[in-house]
Amino acid sequence: MNDAFMDQVLSFIRANRQRFLDELFTLLRIPSVSTKSEHQEDMQRCAQLLVEEFQNIGMPVVELHQTPGHPIVYGEWLQAPGKPTVLIYGHYDVQPPEPLEEWHSPPFEPTIKNDELFCRGSADNKGQLFIHVKAAEAFLKQRGRLPINVKFLIEGEEEVGGEHLEQFIVENKQKLQCDAALVSDSHMFAKNLPTLVSSLRGIVYLQVDVQGPRQDLHSGCFGGAVQNPANALATVIAKLKDDSGRVLIPGFYDNVRELSATEKSMLASLPFDEEEYRKELGVKALFGESGFGVLTHVAARPTLDVNGILSGYTGEGAKTIIPAKATAKISMRLVPHQDPEEIMAATERFIQQQLPPGVAATVRRFHAGKPYMAPLDSVAMQTATKALRQAFAKEVVYLGEGGSIPVVQSFKEQLGVDTVLMGFGVPDENLHSPNEKFNLGHFYKGIEASALFLEGMAQH
Amino acid sequence: MNDAFMDQVLSFIRANRQRFLDELFTLLRIPSVSTKSEHQEDMQRCAQLLVEEFQNIGMPVVELHQTPGHPIVYGEWLQAPGKPTVLIYGHYDVQPPEPLEEWHSPPFEPTIKNDELFCRGSADNKGQLFIHVKAAEAFLKQRGRLPINVKFLIEGEEEVGGEHLEQFIVENKQKLQCDAALVSDSHMFAKNLPTLVSSLRGIVYLQVDVQGPRQDLHSGCFGGAVQNPANALATVIAKLKDDSGRVLIPGFYDNVRELSATEKSMLASLPFDEEEYRKELGVKALFGESGFGVLTHVAARPTLDVNGILSGYTGEGAKTIIPAKATAKISMRLVPHQDPEEIMAATERFIQQQLPPGVAATVRRFHAGKPYMAPLDSVAMQTATKALRQAFAKEVVYLGEGGSIPVVQSFKEQLGVDTVLMGFGVPDENLHSPNEKFNLGHFYKGIEASALFLEGMAQH
Repeated sequence: MNDAFMDQVLSFIRANRQRFLDELFTLLRIPSVSTKSEHQEDMQRCAQLLVEEFQNIGMPVVELHQTPGHPIVYGEWLQAPGKPTVLIYGHYDVQPPEPLEEWHSPPFEPTIKNDELFCRGSADNKGQLFIHVKAAEAFLKQRGRLPINVKFLIEGEEEVGGEHLEQFIVENKQKLQCDAALVSDSHMFAKNLPTLVSSLRGIVYLQVDVQGPRQDLHSGCFGGAVQNPANALATVIAKLKDDSGRVLIPGFYDNVRELSATEKSMLASLPFDEEEYRKELGVKALFGESGFGVLTHVAARPTLDVNGILSGYTGEGAKTIIPAKATAKISMRLVPHQDPEEIMAATERFIQQQLPPGVAATVRRFHAGKPYMAPLDSVAMQTATKALRQAFAKEVVYLGEGGSIPVVQSFKEQLGVDTVLMGFGVPDENLHSPNEKFNLGHFYKGIEASALFLEGMAQH
Repeated sequence: MNDAFMDQVLSFIRANRQRFLDELFTLLRIPSVSTKSEHQEDMQRCAQLLVEEFQNIGMPVVELHQTPGHPIVYGEWLQAPGKPTVLIYGHYDVQPPEPLEEWHSPPFEPTIKNDELFCRGSADNKGQLFIHVKAAEAFLKQRGRLPINVKFLIEGEEEVGGEHLEQFIVENKQKLQCDAALVSDSHMFAKNLPTLVSSLRGIVYLQVDVQGPRQDLHSGCFGGAVQNPANALATVIAKLKDDSGRVLIPGFYDNVRELSATEKSMLASLPFDEEEYRKELGVKALFGESGFGVLTHVAARPTLDVNGILSGYTGEGAKTIIPAKATAKISMRLVPHQDPEEIMAATERFIQQQLPPGVAATVRRFHAGKPYMAPLDSVAMQTATKALRQAFAKEVVYLGEGGSIPVVQSFKEQLGVDTVLMGFGVPDENLHSPNEKFNLGHFYKGIEASALFLEGMAQH
């Protein structure tokens, strides 16, 4: 393809911005919350809409695969023999919108303010996956073909652990064979600063249920006679980390490697204002494991966080009870080369050991995902670097990402390929929080970057 | 009054059991939950019903006093000059019925099973206050007069701290003047074992709100950068008690006295099967501050319990967030001579001191009530002892009660009188829990005991 033709593709993208946005709105309006069973029908509708979308842009093969959970949507265009094949991944499920009262506009009604698109799923991940759909459309509509072979794999269970996608990958290795995977589910370091992810943190997520008396007891009549499960759970949680923020689970840090000098200097070179960041988050002071800077904490150090805790009476006013039970959701972010299964088992043992007498605890495993390191010198990474540089007219930075994208590890293990993590979000977009948003400029430039990447891969 | 006449009064009580029960049902059906603003109208209805009840039994003066909270109902009969005056206290408000799914019958529909009356408020306190109303009725209907002067004082804010009753007492010292107070809001040590309370624990109730980031954050993108308010709150709670259950707030035990030899031997003489008690509560093992038995713990040692805790995502499945805030309700039961105000202040200071960096905490004071010691040799206590002995045909025991009845302290301080705590509940009646119940035999014998007490007081 010559430069003139590529210009036409980019012009098509620019000319169709409003229509692309309208089509994204339709996708965003479906409340595809995967973790809640009440949204099961919405999940089906959302998957069906994606099937129609792939058919409309001209993908010759489009499939909807039902799973015991939510459906997987697959589309392929393989008419470029001899050219590389890229597997593009995304997810159409979103986080629950709660707490609803904190949204400034309805969570599932796309609302534009100051060039930002507010909606649950706008950045994570419907808006980002749509970028690649629209890049493919530009080629298919302008030329009737794509520059390379492309397979789309879109799941509906990313926010709940992606169990059935993992199974689908294992069972469809041949179908999913490719030279590289492309995922846009990460963020740029800052607005208009093109970023490729060099590593991902893994995750271990579990729930601890502490059981005390058969039922809630009057705290006057029984206070002093039984162990209080809420106090007991607090004690266990307190013992998971020391005052400096260091995790105390035995063996937790055993396989954690130190950053290299190059990595450290890359981190140091980033435009980062710690005070600005602190203000943005609205905290009095930043806080992390002693001896590391904030950027190192989120990019390259493991952490442990309580994601939720509930026990006893939490309504208005006072109720004088000893609760019958207490529950907490706890997750850990892992870095290369920590092993999620080992950490999960060690955590479970540690929790049981630290449990005070008089109560029982069960630990329920939710999900686990391995951490990932990307090879910076691969063809796909180099092509992505050039595409991003051209689309955003700025030099690309490489950065460790604090979040977890377990599917990247599956692509590595099951398909034997590395993944280019080319995200278009920015850190303040309220992912998993009220008022999630996505920058419209990034959406439009993202489509161009995706098109340039597909075209660039055709040169190899 | 001669014995023959007293027999008539007791016969009247026995003949009217079913009607008394029906009338109690009407009172129980009103969901008078004082802590929830949605029940404000029910509180008014309930107070109004009590006014009508007092009018129906023939009390000459009945008043409904509105307060900034819930109304106070007052009734008096003062036509026995030269005879003692007893102030009978009760409360018509009840605890919230939640968790609703654990009730075997609707919480506000009185249901009888095996001689037990199941309903929220049946024991705490509508059923118990009704005992005295019906005892008064028996005298008024049979003789047209009471043996002594009686004042009824019924409030609707006992479960939320009784702030406006306290104010009412302060402002109506003359009106409430009496020789002794009588309160039935405690329990017998065991079924058919008549019990008088020798001491009450006080209470301090507070709420801790820990504030972290402006809003919930993605735990991947931000894990490691900020202090997690749920982890921080757990840390604070864990530091309030040591592993042996001893409270670590400085000065907490300073004024706690040891039990006397007499008190210890009284406790030791009680029919108590620790294993039976453990099974009843449904716990693997009992747990209390080291070095004291269970009975001592609940009767005579101070405690600290989390009554409720809430932070982050607590719904179905997993949500990977760092919560913006975390909140806990915490109460302490105090024994003679701990000072609630001092303990409250010390707790507040201690919580702020123990708070990890990176978050802020506010401590909200809910309510405080002083502990109480009853003089066992007073006329009223001796009369109550005889009345209970006769009604239940068994020797009376004296026992420290774990619960808190702050109004008893107000009677002492504002009116200068001691209180007879003549309770008719038993410990397994699920006060403040699902399936609250009240023993019908105790209800009927209680009315007789109350009548015998009024008659007995006339002899002095």
